Parts: sequence; C-alpha cells; structure tokens
Amino acid sequence: MPILLWELAGADPDRRFSPYCWRIRMSLRHKGLDFVTRPWRFTEKDRIAFTGQGKVPVIEDGEKRVHDSWAIAEYLDEAYPDLPSIFGGAAAKSIARFVTDWAESVVQSGMAPMLMADIWAIADAKDQAYFRASREKFWGGRKLEEVQADRDERLPTFRKSLDPLRRMLRHQPFIAGASPAWPDFAVFGPFQWARCVSPYKLLADDDPVHAWRARMLDRFEGEAARAVGFAA
Amino acid sequence: MPILLWELAGADPDRRFSPYCWRIRMSLRHKGLDFVTRPWRFTEKDRIAFTGQGKVPVIEDGEKRVHDSWAIAEYLDEAYPDLPSIFGGAAAKSIARFVTDWAESVVQSGMAPMLMADIWAIADAKDQAYFRASREKFWGGRKLEEVQADRDERLPTFRKSLDPLRRMLRHQPFIAGASPAWPDFAVFGPFQWARCVSPYKLLADDDPVHAWRARMLDRFEGEAARAVGFAA
Repeated sequence: MPILLWELAGADPDRRFSPYCWRIRMSLRHKGLDFVTRPWRFTEKDRIAFTGQGKVPVIEDGEKRVHDSWAIAEYLDEAYPDLPSIFGGAAAKSIARFVTDWAESVVQSGMAPMLMADIWAIADAKDQAYFRASREKFWGGRKLEEVQADRDERLPTFRKSLDPLRRMLRHQPFIAGASPAWPDFAVFGPFQWARCVSPYKLLADDDPVHAWRARMLDRFEGEAARAVGFAA
Repeated sequence: MPILLWELAGADPDRRFSPYCWRIRMSLRHKGLDFVTRPWRFTEKDRIAFTGQGKVPVIEDGEKRVHDSWAIAEYLDEAYPDLPSIFGGAAAKSIARFVTDWAESVVQSGMAPMLMADIWAIADAKDQAYFRASREKFWGGRKLEEVQADRDERLPTFRKSLDPLRRMLRHQPFIAGASPAWPDFAVFGPFQWARCVSPYKLLADDDPVHAWRARMLDRFEGEAARAVGFAA
C-alpha cells in the first residue's frame, strides 16, 4: 500500500504550496517510496485531528501516522533503512538541524512578508478569511497587501541573507555534497513555496542560488518543476 | 615530533586571536594530537613564504606543510583516520561546508566592524600600520575608530543574525550533536576572536548562544577559556 501524504492545497487542489510538505515530497522521492497525496486546507483541522494537532505534512504508512516534517523524515529513515538515507547518518543529521533552522529563520522568514497577499489570493475560498485574520494578527494588525507592498525594498536584504548558500555553492553543487539530501530539501521548501504562490522574482537569473534552485526543480524527473505554480 | 601550528599573535605573544587558528587549535585537541604553537604577526609574510601565500594557520607535520583552516582539517582527518574525526565523515563534511560559510559570512562579518579599533589596539606595534591601512581601505576609507563607533546600534542586528544557532540549541547542545566537532569549531572561531581582542559584550548572559559558547570555552580542559583575552 503506498504511503499517504496530506498536503496543503490552494483553491486549485493541485496547487501544493507548503514549504514543509515539499520537504517530505522530495524526501519520499529521494527514498524511492511509493506514495499518493491528499489535498488539505488550513481550515480542515478536523480531518487531521487524529494526529493531535492541526498542521500538515501528515503521513499515513499503514497503521503508522506521523506529523511534523522533521519527525516524518526521521521515521522514513528508520522505517526504511535500506533505501537511500534522507539524513545521511547521525553526524550529518545533527548538522542538518542547523541548516533546517537557517532555512526557517532566514530563508522562509525573509520571504514571508513578500508573499502574504499572494498566498491569500491562491488560497481556497474557505481558507481566505482564516488566513487573513491569523496572518494580519501576526503582522501586528497590518493588512496583507500592506505587508507585501514594500517587497522591492526588502529584496536586497533577502538576497544578501543567502550569502552562506552562495559561498557554499563555490565548493559543491548541493548542501549535502554531490547530490541533494535533507539540507537541500529543507532550504528548497521555502523556494518552492514562493514559486507555487507568487510570480514575484526572488532570485536574479545569474545568482548561483538560482542555478541551485534549477537543479532542485529538475530533480526526480522534474517533480518540483512540474508543480502548479509560477515561472518566477 | 609534535605538529607545529603557526598562529596569529598580538603585541602580547600569548594573545592568539585568529578565528581561523582557533578552529585548528580546537581540531588538534579534538583529535588528541600533540602540538606546539609559534606566534606570527600579520607583517611576517616572509616567515611563511614556504607555503606560497601569506596567512595563518599553517601547520608543519614532519615534512608536510598545510595552510588554510579547511585544508588543514581535511589533512588531519586523512592523515590520522584512527583518531576522532573532525568532520564526522563525508556526508557531515559536506553540510559542514555550509555552516563554515555561515560562520564567515554572518557571524564573523557581523562582528568585524564592532572589533576593528580593538584589534588595532592589541596588535603588535609592527603590525599596526599595516592593519590600519588595509582595513581602512576595506571599510571605504573610514577610520577604524569610526567603523567601530556605532557598534551599539549594530548589536541588535548581530544578535538577531544568530537565530538559526539559537533555534538549533533547543534541540541539541552542539551543532555537531551531543559533542562538538568542526561546525562548532568553525562558529566558535569568531566568538573566540572577539573575546581575545575586545571587552565588548556581544552576547547577553541569558542567550542560549552564550551558554553554548561557555561549553566551548570549557572544552578540552578550558583550552579557550584560559587563553589571553577579555572576560566578555
């Protein structure tokens, strides 16, 4: 029986835009596991109540149910030790924790204000009020359109924040080395999130990070390149 | 015969303040290798001309001479495979490249303007003119004292830039996991650099990064804690 992956979807059920779900989709493909996906919306907390929390990704592997992207990757490496490792062993996994935290606190947090109104626009109609209320509260009561309005001014700082990745790319094609693994999936998640929700161009064409993203988009027969999104 | 490590020193020959040399000192202790150090000053390019470049750390291990901190760590893991690994294997080493680039482009670059005049003050008399000229050129002609003057305003941004490390410390005591290795040495280097040259307090006492730094200072019977420097 294939693994079932619950993924965040927009008004278009094929628009799968969660950065955390993308980590898992790439991880499943990395291991070569058979899986099917099920679209889920922000407000469908009841449908995943069996996990004791309200966020995706969630996977169901037979009787086993796991939530939280890091925990799912851990589960997959433990349950399928003979398939290619997502983390690459204990030492690599510890260091990958740092890269994951960088992806979330720098890359994803840096992008978030530049995408807010665009996410609202592609969200399912039944999610839009929830999304607007929760995010406008997070942004201190500012309207999503207002939060996003100054993105051209934010862009240089965002691009500068990618310097560690850019420097690393002088030495090797992926964070995990010669081929991608969890650290790449963790950092690619936010980039794919942006691409799925917004036409806004976050990366200059001649940026080495752009070339790395292109390699990630092409991976697994273009799994990410083929996703519903924008050409940004 | 013990390994010889050439280290950058100040007017006080025991003040060893290079962030790159500290990585190697910690790496040598990590492997349990016997070593002696030799103080070197910025302007003594001729003394290490045998390496074909002008920077420390440099090590001499019998006939073997290696420069560049990353290359030295690679050499040590290759030459002494039976001693504890600095990188922890190929997968961990690839990801450590990213952490090293983060340490340099975020931590060290973030600290640099806050330390410029303090470094000049502890530098050897024969280095001071060189240091001032080269660094003032780098800082667009501004005086070192001027570059350093606004450090109180820079401090919040610097502390914020440590968020990925702070978040990671919720999960584990060191970047390398349960005990430190190269990624910790790479990030600790700039912190020890700052501590060796300046009384300026970069970290709040209740910052988890402060606690991590304390663990690093205590490591190897307090190797770094005992170094000539400030209590900052």
